[in-house]
Amino acid sequence: MNKRLVFRIQGTILLTLAAAMLPSLLISLGYGGKDAMPLLISMLITAAAGLPLRFLTKPRNTNLHAREGFITVGLAWLFMSLFGCLPFLLSGFLPTFSDAFFEACSGFSTTGSTVVTDFSHMPRGITFWRSFTHWIGGMGVLVLTLAVLPQVTGRSSYLVKAESPGPSLSKVAPKIKDSSKILYVIYTIITVLMFVILMLCGLNPYDASIHALGTAGTGGFSNYGASIAAFQSPAVEIVMTVFMFVFGSNLSLYFLLFNGRWRDALRSEELRWYFGIDVAAFVLISAIILPGYRGDVWTALRQAAFNVATITSTSGFVVNDYTLWPVAARAVILILMFIGASVGSTAGGMKTMRIVLLLKQGKRDIRRAFSPRRVSVIRFEGRGVDETMLHQIAVFAFVYLALVLLGGLLVSLDGLYDIETNFSAALTCLSNVGPGFGAVGPSGNFAAYSPFAKIVLSLLMLAGRLELFPILILFHPKAWSNT
Amino acid sequence: MNKRLVFRIQGTILLTLAAAMLPSLLISLGYGGKDAMPLLISMLITAAAGLPLRFLTKPRNTNLHAREGFITVGLAWLFMSLFGCLPFLLSGFLPTFSDAFFEACSGFSTTGSTVVTDFSHMPRGITFWRSFTHWIGGMGVLVLTLAVLPQVTGRSSYLVKAESPGPSLSKVAPKIKDSSKILYVIYTIITVLMFVILMLCGLNPYDASIHALGTAGTGGFSNYGASIAAFQSPAVEIVMTVFMFVFGSNLSLYFLLFNGRWRDALRSEELRWYFGIDVAAFVLISAIILPGYRGDVWTALRQAAFNVATITSTSGFVVNDYTLWPVAARAVILILMFIGASVGSTAGGMKTMRIVLLLKQGKRDIRRAFSPRRVSVIRFEGRGVDETMLHQIAVFAFVYLALVLLGGLLVSLDGLYDIETNFSAALTCLSNVGPGFGAVGPSGNFAAYSPFAKIVLSLLMLAGRLELFPILILFHPKAWSNT
Repeated sequence: MNKRLVFRIQGTILLTLAAAMLPSLLISLGYGGKDAMPLLISMLITAAAGLPLRFLTKPRNTNLHAREGFITVGLAWLFMSLFGCLPFLLSGFLPTFSDAFFEACSGFSTTGSTVVTDFSHMPRGITFWRSFTHWIGGMGVLVLTLAVLPQVTGRSSYLVKAESPGPSLSKVAPKIKDSSKILYVIYTIITVLMFVILMLCGLNPYDASIHALGTAGTGGFSNYGASIAAFQSPAVEIVMTVFMFVFGSNLSLYFLLFNGRWRDALRSEELRWYFGIDVAAFVLISAIILPGYRGDVWTALRQAAFNVATITSTSGFVVNDYTLWPVAARAVILILMFIGASVGSTAGGMKTMRIVLLLKQGKRDIRRAFSPRRVSVIRFEGRGVDETMLHQIAVFAFVYLALVLLGGLLVSLDGLYDIETNFSAALTCLSNVGPGFGAVGPSGNFAAYSPFAKIVLSLLMLAGRLELFPILILFHPKAWSNT
Repeated sequence: MNKRLVFRIQGTILLTLAAAMLPSLLISLGYGGKDAMPLLISMLITAAAGLPLRFLTKPRNTNLHAREGFITVGLAWLFMSLFGCLPFLLSGFLPTFSDAFFEACSGFSTTGSTVVTDFSHMPRGITFWRSFTHWIGGMGVLVLTLAVLPQVTGRSSYLVKAESPGPSLSKVAPKIKDSSKILYVIYTIITVLMFVILMLCGLNPYDASIHALGTAGTGGFSNYGASIAAFQSPAVEIVMTVFMFVFGSNLSLYFLLFNGRWRDALRSEELRWYFGIDVAAFVLISAIILPGYRGDVWTALRQAAFNVATITSTSGFVVNDYTLWPVAARAVILILMFIGASVGSTAGGMKTMRIVLLLKQGKRDIRRAFSPRRVSVIRFEGRGVDETMLHQIAVFAFVYLALVLLGGLLVSLDGLYDIETNFSAALTCLSNVGPGFGAVGPSGNFAAYSPFAKIVLSLLMLAGRLELFPILILFHPKAWSNT
């Protein structure tokens, strides 16, 4: 394995990360600079760790194979979270390592689960950094690095593949570097658009930026304990609902839109399924919760739509506590937590494309049982899908379930809470949603778990964000061998 | 489709079922005959429905293809449950159809979930019938029919395949008919052996037969509300634990044992995994629960072993309420509910073989991610496993999860209980275990659910027993077309 190259790229990542802390430092200074010092120190430590890795490692060649690609990405996200948690740790905002690391993993992985219990003293710069990790985690730091820096390696496609959500790569340009740039530009434009609209709804620039960054990354961190409910504004709720749906769609579709090819964009099979699942869930939940709202149909529909958007897009913002809804509505929420949103979006979960391909495979295998000799090709987006890819998707689904079960068991070793809380904690972290059920529901948080449970959940968040393999590989003994 | 042949076989099944009610009638008469009349009437109705189907349908040929095989089996189990619930219904023991049907499906599918709330007035013949359904459901009524009757069709392998648990058929003899006979004989011998040992432990013949039949089928129905705890006998608990493990193993291994080939039997990879999972779960649960037993190590270990055996074998007998254990022990129980026991046993669940092959596939796909060109064949029981079969097993796992989620949602429409209760109800029914968590835990029952929820759970039980496809096919529109 080309270890030197792997560590050289880690150096580049850390330098990018240090630079990414600058906006938070400026925000801090703009609001009085009370938390400027820990941010500055974090930047310096991160840069100091990155510089030697970047400039003192001399790889013999820049060949990057699949193995290096996966390991590089897995390690990069671990390093990012380790250094990205420094501002929380050094500021005393989250004074224990496991809390700070959990919050950083939750940020970068765009999960939005939090260990913060006291929202009354949120330091401005640190809180901005917390939401900014959502924004850069959503699209990926490696993708950002590739987009803005000169090529660090000859074959960077493995890096982007390992960091991008979904079994296939959305290409909007022939070169990966150009694709990354274009997608980051689109991402930035929609984020700014949302920021402006939130300002028009009456939010101050700080709150607007926090929630625009969090929505863009489909993260879920808010600077209010009550999350979106703090604004008491139906307009803000609706804007959030729409943009959560937007950021849960494949971003390359907006490239088509910007190029006037809206027909092509609307023809996307995944978009139709994603929309269809959202509408079906909205109708079902509305029907279930309406009786409990005693005639307040408008609030019921708005909250149903918001919750469907926040869960399928795996954002995790809150306007009301869905665990207080009838059990059937909670059951729908639970199922949506597995599904997630679209490939090529900033969202987590198993992704609509995989779910659809799994359902098509299930249907085919039922058919095959009674027509064993029938040959049938599964089609998606108008093309036949390769059998190896279908097979891998089915195995992926099992590994996903296995991680939820294993995670739920490990978290339960704390002896806290119940089956519902602990297994939903594992699921919501792996799917990058944010809140779960029971004690980790929208009104709860993850603060009471032990450091061990927090590390387990942190790894699940990173594994979910990177679609399992870049993190799982780090635990495979053969991955580190030299042969 | 050869519909006439399908219905002719249904006739044979119903006649077999009517004959299978005879022992219960004799037991009833032996204990005073209070419930003899409803049993006799049920027998007559079942026979009256079976006779014309058997003798008035004149199929043009006896060719049985895969489609007819699956549909025949799926329909047969529906018919069995519809007619098998007559004794419950006509005796007034369970006076509503959904309750009686639920109990019959739970019996035949060897689940053991119950809607019975009052165990103080269990009519002897009816209760025997309830446990006898476990026994015939465990090995399969079609298998029984094939074993004892002259060949009804030229190609019966499709029937046995569709009714037998596991992705591959255990063959102990070249001819399916002979295999079925041999396995039924082994099954009967071990059941009788267990009956005798339970008698030696001090049980009366009636209780011994009820619990031997229920254990053989890995069912779980008891004639006591407290289940095995009613006997207050460590000896009975240990005997049950051992035999639950025994009936969770592939029965064809006992054929090897009886032929002196115990080395071959012990070499079975699935047996080793099954044993290994049980031991690991036993150690883990013991370590978790020991502090709560305040020095009563003996009871803790016995109850840990009993619960591991009752859950992995998917029996569902109870000595203590595991929902009162620490949450980590409950988490282990939950995971065991997915796994189940061995292929070729009377147990439910996904089966050890599938779980092992899925774990091997997960490991292979992690490896593949960093060594994409590496070709590796997955081996089981010393042989390479076909890729198509591996693919189907992975899809099976997804369909299994999807049915748990869909079932949990449909059951939740009642508006009763919570996520934990309703989704564990769907899981425990699909895996044929019996008790779940929350309100359907070992101290609870399924009585409060609506008729709709009970039908959903009944279909899940049958689907789980038949490894999904024979039941799912009945809902596939193409299955019934004539082309």
